[in-house]
Amino acid sequence: MVTFETSFPVRYAETDRMGIVYHANYYVWFEVGRNELLKSAGLPYWEIESQGVFLPVVKGFCRYRRPARFGDTVVVKTRVEELRAARIRLSYEVYRQQDNALLAEGYTEHGFVDGSGKPINLRKGHPQIWEILHKLKNLK
Amino acid sequence: MVTFETSFPVRYAETDRMGIVYHANYYVWFEVGRNELLKSAGLPYWEIESQGVFLPVVKGFCRYRRPARFGDTVVVKTRVEELRAARIRLSYEVYRQQDNALLAEGYTEHGFVDGSGKPINLRKGHPQIWEILHKLKNLK
Amino acid sequence: MVTFETSFPVRYAETDRMGIVYHANYYVWFEVGRNELLKSAGLPYWEIESQGVFLPVVKGFCRYRRPARFGDTVVVKTRVEELRAARIRLSYEVYRQQDNALLAEGYTEHGFVDGSGKPINLRKGHPQIWEILHKLKNLK
Amino acid sequence: MVTFETSFPVRYAETDRMGIVYHANYYVWFEVGRNELLKSAGLPYWEIESQGVFLPVVKGFCRYRRPARFGDTVVVKTRVEELRAARIRLSYEVYRQQDNALLAEGYTEHGFVDGSGKPINLRKGHPQIWEILHKLKNLK
Repeated sequence: MVTFETSFPVRYAETDRMGIVYHANYYVWFEVGRNELLKSAGLPYWEIESQGVFLPVVKGFCRYRRPARFGDTVVVKTRVEELRAARIRLSYEVYRQQDNALLAEGYTEHGFVDGSGKPINLRKGHPQIWEILHKLKNLK
Repeated sequence: MVTFETSFPVRYAETDRMGIVYHANYYVWFEVGRNELLKSAGLPYWEIESQGVFLPVVKGFCRYRRPARFGDTVVVKTRVEELRAARIRLSYEVYRQQDNALLAEGYTEHGFVDGSGKPINLRKGHPQIWEILHKLKNLK
Repeated sequence: MVTFETSFPVRYAETDRMGIVYHANYYVWFEVGRNELLKSAGLPYWEIESQGVFLPVVKGFCRYRRPARFGDTVVVKTRVEELRAARIRLSYEVYRQQDNALLAEGYTEHGFVDGSGKPINLRKGHPQIWEILHKLKNLK
Repeated sequence: MVTFETSFPVRYAETDRMGIVYHANYYVWFEVGRNELLKSAGLPYWEIESQGVFLPVVKGFCRYRRPARFGDTVVVKTRVEELRAARIRLSYEVYRQQDNALLAEGYTEHGFVDGSGKPINLRKGHPQIWEILHKLKNLK
């Protein structure tokens, strides 16, 4: 499961005047977790896009438990939560590396669309991509 | 209700390589809507903070319906959805000004904390702020 | 010259833990100024792109004089500084609206390229766009 | 010199609709390089701030040579270019890891100020911090 974890230091740019990481940036961290998960499965997201498949976010949620601060290194744990022909849901947990405290948890749901934004049936249209995502889902 | 609406053009910086606005930026737009709502009530958020009250986000959700693009002007409609002694929930709708299409809707939930991050009872501790937020809630 | 000025409130997301606006965000404000300047000339940037002309930044500079803070409304003044067949330079000044204090000044230089990133001669290839930019330059 | 290099993958959030990394984000990458340089010297930036010393950016410049794209891993090389009692200048080069192509180069200049933004003489006021920065400068 090591490949589904990714960690990186908080950037100063990500903080706000409250002295903590601005909430919207957790979605960027979710994206980093998602990218690393896909890379670890041999299917980096840019390869999905180069096959004409795009995964725009259709829904997102985050529960913030403790603030992340500059100086923290955060660990993002990502997994495929749900997979359907037309969409995928990934879930994320963000931890503070120093003491393993849970900082936030959330999910993003993505549609499968083509270059013009039209929904596609991934299982039928792109069985190879589907197969890899399916394996990721069942790895849990 | 006009004062609870705010509109602004999409920034190029907010788009991503899919040609649409990156999902995390909608939370920044929600923030703009929230700020304008508070200003319209004579209680800009910086004045709340200058009284030692902070409103970190504890939960956030967004449902993305249609993509926003560079060239669009977006309209954010904001309202106070729920108010309790320890937290507040605001909800948001984002429209494309040109055709009034709904692009996204969501909410943010905020705790009331002091400068050290400790939860406070807003109603008891800061009745004047409470009063204004309470009026905003009932204006709907 | 009013149309070359644009103003907007600082976003909380733009601040950092020093309590001031993070320096990189001034380039986003420069972009807002640039977009409004082009709109005011009847040539919004998305129309330039829709004609297959792109203006990637090749050089940028900013001198920060006083910090911008949440609560400030900033005014961006933009002008075309230099125009050549292959590139354009715009310069910017950022003021704090309350007291007209100069917060920052800088410039961006942009190449003219086609959709594949190849440099183009704007004067020859797109005389109508050239004409408008040329007028903007001489308006000073 | 290995410790003065840091590398990380491009984030999707950092791209724009031109399909390349938005120019302002290079300053965030410069910040990452700066943070790693200071960490490598045993003086992480948050420790500088915890001693009441802040380094706001007073000047910044970047020359963009080739676009960075999603899928690229970038390498940032950072060094202390100039050090004076009242300010420091760091310079940066950004490379594409795959082929070692130079993507951008630039600098940031920072003042030394206290918590209220007042300039300080670092050499006199904080000789230990000064000593470390001075060593970094001469390491080149």
